[in-house]
Amino acid sequence: MNEARLQQQLAFIVEIDRLKSVLRQTRLIDDSRRENSAEHSWHLAVMAALLGEYAEPGTNMAYVVKMVLIHDIVEIDAGDAFAYDPAANEGKEEREEQAAQRLFGLLPDDQRDELLGLWHEFEAQNTPESRFANALDRLQPLLINYHSGGGTWKKAGVTLDKVRGRMAPIGNASAALGQYVETILEDSVTKGFLQRE
Amino acid sequence: MNEARLQQQLAFIVEIDRLKSVLRQTRLIDDSRRENSAEHSWHLAVMAALLGEYAEPGTNMAYVVKMVLIHDIVEIDAGDAFAYDPAANEGKEEREEQAAQRLFGLLPDDQRDELLGLWHEFEAQNTPESRFANALDRLQPLLINYHSGGGTWKKAGVTLDKVRGRMAPIGNASAALGQYVETILEDSVTKGFLQRE
Repeated sequence: MNEARLQQQLAFIVEIDRLKSVLRQTRLIDDSRRENSAEHSWHLAVMAALLGEYAEPGTNMAYVVKMVLIHDIVEIDAGDAFAYDPAANEGKEEREEQAAQRLFGLLPDDQRDELLGLWHEFEAQNTPESRFANALDRLQPLLINYHSGGGTWKKAGVTLDKVRGRMAPIGNASAALGQYVETILEDSVTKGFLQRE
Repeated sequence: MNEARLQQQLAFIVEIDRLKSVLRQTRLIDDSRRENSAEHSWHLAVMAALLGEYAEPGTNMAYVVKMVLIHDIVEIDAGDAFAYDPAANEGKEEREEQAAQRLFGLLPDDQRDELLGLWHEFEAQNTPESRFANALDRLQPLLINYHSGGGTWKKAGVTLDKVRGRMAPIGNASAALGQYVETILEDSVTKGFLQRE
């Protein structure tokens, strides 16, 4: 056994414990507290394991699972930026790239390159896998907000148009899921969870 | 699209949000709070994605990832039983079987059967995949306890023999990881994190 290699792998595994302390704007469905990025990533991975039939034919779902598992790890250094806050998103790309280099750089070179590649692919959204991973990353908070009476939409006074724009990648990745999202959005307006404008 | 099917899948995805509120005995490495079973499952899944080279040759690691993602979902109904508390473990098997039937039963029949099978396989530990998944489930709290100065071992006054017994499945699944665990245990005794007897 190459003990130095195992120690690098375990150093990374220990370091990413900190993702459990990165808080998102989204709250749990029971409204008890804010969601953290580690449990959010778990939720996406289970969704990827179950919703593959809605992805483009030929999409490698095991690869999507892996992608969503690591897609937020950069937030350990770069923090989570609320999607509907333009100021929080300034300089985000550079901060996240530095974070990716440091965090994935804890791993042996081959695994550093693999995870960096996976994360860059997630960000670029130019493959069926990364488009579907991004769709799940948008669908999960939508489900939470819808099932908790409006959640962060209501608190931030977000409008239908803004959410619809934010959810567009779902329809691009999957017509079936995109169609269902439209139903949820219309119902959210009817129920007063979301303002029409 | 079969909308009833999608609704069953989403009902399950919404229901499992509650795993984020099931607390384990283990604390985060920074000792800020107790760990929950959803973020624990995420941690195991990332470990499975990185440590496949230590599993038996031919082990299907994508399958291990899926297994660890769903292995604790039964705790939504059955709760988490502390490994070193015999009383908490009484009747656990029956409670968990009922929980599995109800929770996975929210899914369409084919996916219910798939996840029930995956969970039963995890519990039975009679395949390379389930043995490796179990090994990760033991290794993760060991890493947390070791990197947080003893953690729950120290609080519960657990002895080396007890932890060594609990960690035995790691060596059964992977000689290399088992050997490394032995080094960690010896060092934990030296450092006073763990009592020899």
